[in-house]
Amino acid sequence: MKYELYYWPGIQGRGEFIRLALEDAGADYVDVARRPKGMQAMQVQMKRNRIFACPFLRAGSVVVAQTALILHFLGPRLGLAPRSETGRLWVHQQQLTISDWLVEVHDTHHPVGSGLYYEDQKAESLRRAKDFRENRLPKFLDYFERLERPKGFTYLDLSLFQMVQGLRYAFPKTMKEMKYPKLSALHDKVAARPRLAAYVASERRIPFNQQGIFRHYPELDA
Amino acid sequence: MKYELYYWPGIQGRGEFIRLALEDAGADYVDVARRPKGMQAMQVQMKRNRIFACPFLRAGSVVVAQTALILHFLGPRLGLAPRSETGRLWVHQQQLTISDWLVEVHDTHHPVGSGLYYEDQKAESLRRAKDFRENRLPKFLDYFERLERPKGFTYLDLSLFQMVQGLRYAFPKTMKEMKYPKLSALHDKVAARPRLAAYVASERRIPFNQQGIFRHYPELDA
Repeated sequence: MKYELYYWPGIQGRGEFIRLALEDAGADYVDVARRPKGMQAMQVQMKRNRIFACPFLRAGSVVVAQTALILHFLGPRLGLAPRSETGRLWVHQQQLTISDWLVEVHDTHHPVGSGLYYEDQKAESLRRAKDFRENRLPKFLDYFERLERPKGFTYLDLSLFQMVQGLRYAFPKTMKEMKYPKLSALHDKVAARPRLAAYVASERRIPFNQQGIFRHYPELDA
Repeated sequence: MKYELYYWPGIQGRGEFIRLALEDAGADYVDVARRPKGMQAMQVQMKRNRIFACPFLRAGSVVVAQTALILHFLGPRLGLAPRSETGRLWVHQQQLTISDWLVEVHDTHHPVGSGLYYEDQKAESLRRAKDFRENRLPKFLDYFERLERPKGFTYLDLSLFQMVQGLRYAFPKTMKEMKYPKLSALHDKVAARPRLAAYVASERRIPFNQQGIFRHYPELDA
């Protein structure tokens, strides 16, 4: 099966969670919008399939949107999900909580509106980021630190790797003060997986930048 | 099967999407936290099952959290989901977009932090609500207005009914200016379903109020 991933070409964003799964599994896929005329192709598919927002995935005649659902769909096909239906729903549930977490990360620099520049909502961002650092980040980190994951490797492990990477990029000072030894060990274990490591070292991995979800504004990490 | 729903007892909130499905199906369920000592029971179950946030559902030995996932789990059991797996995933995808929409409704009055009072983030709320009314609300409404739903009745119809009800409560002025004839007709069709109508008229339906996700602050509906 050749997969087509559709996502913004200049950022990791939500699409990165899908890229990590496809890359770690060595799947045959095309990151459509990063190819010549790819953005036009993405617009066409969005209209044709009435997609609310990217990322979305095409797999033959199936089109799936919503990051967590794409992973739920891909997981068993890529060998990155538990075997039992109960196990799969459980991993999906955790991924949905990561989706919630990610919205809160995004909103630290966009608390007023995603269509406005950060510079136009900086005062609000300072307050929101403070609340995130002091209340929400510790709550999410603590939850996933204590979570007993299934024994086999799943896309949840890849997603937690990405959360740790992104949070360390966006909030280096805050993250140094946090204690999350199990998640940190998981991060290192994932980083050492051969295909994942090759991907992260390649040009296919878009660097973290100031257009993505994880952004480093020192004033928000004070 | 006797279901146990766990959710805050004083608000509709996210739990209401589950209540609507259980009520419309005439399911045998207990709204645990609304019973005597129910809040204690909820705390016990949250710890025991390591639940990040309510609502969550107990169905025998299965415990499921995340609103959209609970509906995905309940849908087939309550006769409120398509028969095919593809159809079920599609409805789940739409419900996940409703979850995203609901976060944005919530953040109109809590753009800085969910642990703070509205009064302590009113200035930020005015800006966020303006962006919601002018950009986000039209985008979501338009998306669901054009969406071709499956022919059979599903929990997605119930959830769209709830979105229309809630938005009309929170933003009466704005909603009067919006055009959504198909969603409005769907709302009326759902409201006329006998079990649903009986529920909405009963004391089991908690009225909309200023502690929930949908809140009516006239200044945010200007």
